Amino acid sequence: MPTENHQIRLAARPRGLPTPEVWEHTTEELGDPGPGQFLAKVEYLSLDPAMRGWMNEGRSYIPPVGLGEVMRAGAVAEVVVSQHEGFAAGDHVSFAFGVQEYALSDGKGVIKVDPGVASLPTYLGTLGAAGMTAYFGLLEEARPVAGETVVVSGAAGAVGSVVGQIAKLKGCRVVGIAGGADKCAWLDEELGFDATIDYKAGDLKARLREAAPKGVDVYFDNVGGQILDDVLTQIRRGARIIICGAISQYNATEPVKGPSNYLSLLVNRATMKGMVVFDYADRYAEAAQEMAGWLADGSLVAREHVVEGGIAAFPDALLKLFAGENTGKLVLKVA
Amino acid sequence: MPTENHQIRLAARPRGLPTPEVWEHTTEELGDPGPGQFLAKVEYLSLDPAMRGWMNEGRSYIPPVGLGEVMRAGAVAEVVVSQHEGFAAGDHVSFAFGVQEYALSDGKGVIKVDPGVASLPTYLGTLGAAGMTAYFGLLEEARPVAGETVVVSGAAGAVGSVVGQIAKLKGCRVVGIAGGADKCAWLDEELGFDATIDYKAGDLKARLREAAPKGVDVYFDNVGGQILDDVLTQIRRGARIIICGAISQYNATEPVKGPSNYLSLLVNRATMKGMVVFDYADRYAEAAQEMAGWLADGSLVAREHVVEGGIAAFPDALLKLFAGENTGKLVLKVA
Repeated sequence: MPTENHQIRLAARPRGLPTPEVWEHTTEELGDPGPGQFLAKVEYLSLDPAMRGWMNEGRSYIPPVGLGEVMRAGAVAEVVVSQHEGFAAGDHVSFAFGVQEYALSDGKGVIKVDPGVASLPTYLGTLGAAGMTAYFGLLEEARPVAGETVVVSGAAGAVGSVVGQIAKLKGCRVVGIAGGADKCAWLDEELGFDATIDYKAGDLKARLREAAPKGVDVYFDNVGGQILDDVLTQIRRGARIIICGAISQYNATEPVKGPSNYLSLLVNRATMKGMVVFDYADRYAEAAQEMAGWLADGSLVAREHVVEGGIAAFPDALLKLFAGENTGKLVLKVA
Repeated sequence: MPTENHQIRLAARPRGLPTPEVWEHTTEELGDPGPGQFLAKVEYLSLDPAMRGWMNEGRSYIPPVGLGEVMRAGAVAEVVVSQHEGFAAGDHVSFAFGVQEYALSDGKGVIKVDPGVASLPTYLGTLGAAGMTAYFGLLEEARPVAGETVVVSGAAGAVGSVVGQIAKLKGCRVVGIAGGADKCAWLDEELGFDATIDYKAGDLKARLREAAPKGVDVYFDNVGGQILDDVLTQIRRGARIIICGAISQYNATEPVKGPSNYLSLLVNRATMKGMVVFDYADRYAEAAQEMAGWLADGSLVAREHVVEGGIAAFPDALLKLFAGENTGKLVLKVA
């Protein structure tokens, strides 16, 4: 039986990028699970751009992480001791256990995962919240039709890479916007995107004109900022823009840059729509089953970028997201 | 038979507000209508914020007015000589005859209007493009439900005043944003808005919080700029923002101000949607009939601000729109 638990808590609200000072490293004694509880050992943690938003005070789609609280994070864990009839030692489970090594749970909201179907990190990526976001954001919110042009930003990230692949499965022309030649090569060569644009190479508008000569029917936006503004100049009539995230803006210390070309929505009778994946929670199992099938037959490729180093590595690992250092889903190996 | 026609043509593309130099006043000899044609004498011209967009070069929902062309404008006119079997002298008709005193027409796209049902200026306002925009923008694009809070900007204008009244007819709480105490008094006292906000009085966010304590379900935006940004901070989950226009930005010489609070769309799973009324052209008759009924029974009030002075007064009259000098539909009396 483990007796100690290490945790990362939010000590202060960051301004700009989360510096080491905003985190507190704590050690606690571990209690035993009581009746109806189990003790879970965290194996992998999910690192998400959305975490930056959870660290801010104020109204959002989810309450902020409180000062002094263990940082919220999705996790896969192994049940080590159980007094809960639904979970047995050795079970692998997924839940927002937070940035800590162990967690006591009453099982509420916890789902079992099968390492025989996919690797544990994949349950945090393509079969986790990121994959669900891509699946429902694309298929339910954007509703692309075969032959349409789908553009996705953050295309080599956890959500974007799945969006592009599902759009390909649905018969769309897929254009990925990513930062750097390596990411673009992966999208082109491994994932079969029709075209990619390295936004760091400049002149995004001209490149997009080449990559999407008929214009953009669906834009799945993970980044916001100048890229959103540039894509707005090339949408087609009836285009759907899904606002999934705005990683370029999350650490801004100045006001968020609004899309100054938003009147393109008027000219093109287009829609810009925000989405939050939690709204589809009752359909996750259905989507995961379909995506697991695609993974099994090779029509969907899952990739994770695994950072080693346990809980203590969390503050630095999180910054990799905002530096664009990950290709695929960024996860932290804990156990 | 008249023999001369006076016209206002676009001589140069404006930068900022259209100054007198962008217009050319021309005089032409009037020809006789040939077989299948009629000659119409323009009685009233419609002055629309959208005109400013038509004066710009470049891609939009409608081709720009070409340099040297008669300025595009909606009009009601009287048929004075006809060789067209569908139109007789004395008929009143509506069409984009342009900023001129007379027009020859083959009747294509021209609709007859009945001065016994409504005054001629009303056919350019509540029963014209402005009214159609309000009707379809609200009922088809925003689809408000009784009990929801509908906020409209440019609320004392041709479109906004109709949006608010229809929303009231549908059982919504209606909040109008307008510039100046007189306009607000008209909306409060004559049109029965539930609340009004004079944006010139400052502190729009605080006033909106009072006027829409449950938050905003529908925002019908005619103005853009800071008001759009402020309303975005107070939308409810599932809100619909209709982008009908952005009069605050049409004469901007700097880049348009994008809505920096657009991530509120994400948090609130909200939609921002552009509309162009022309898409509903095949249903104008149906809408006009319903609205004429509302006018007749007093549940809808039409108001026009009529400027005298004929064609020569057009350049100055147009500027009244951008100075916010009109309450209700701004029209120019020509004949």
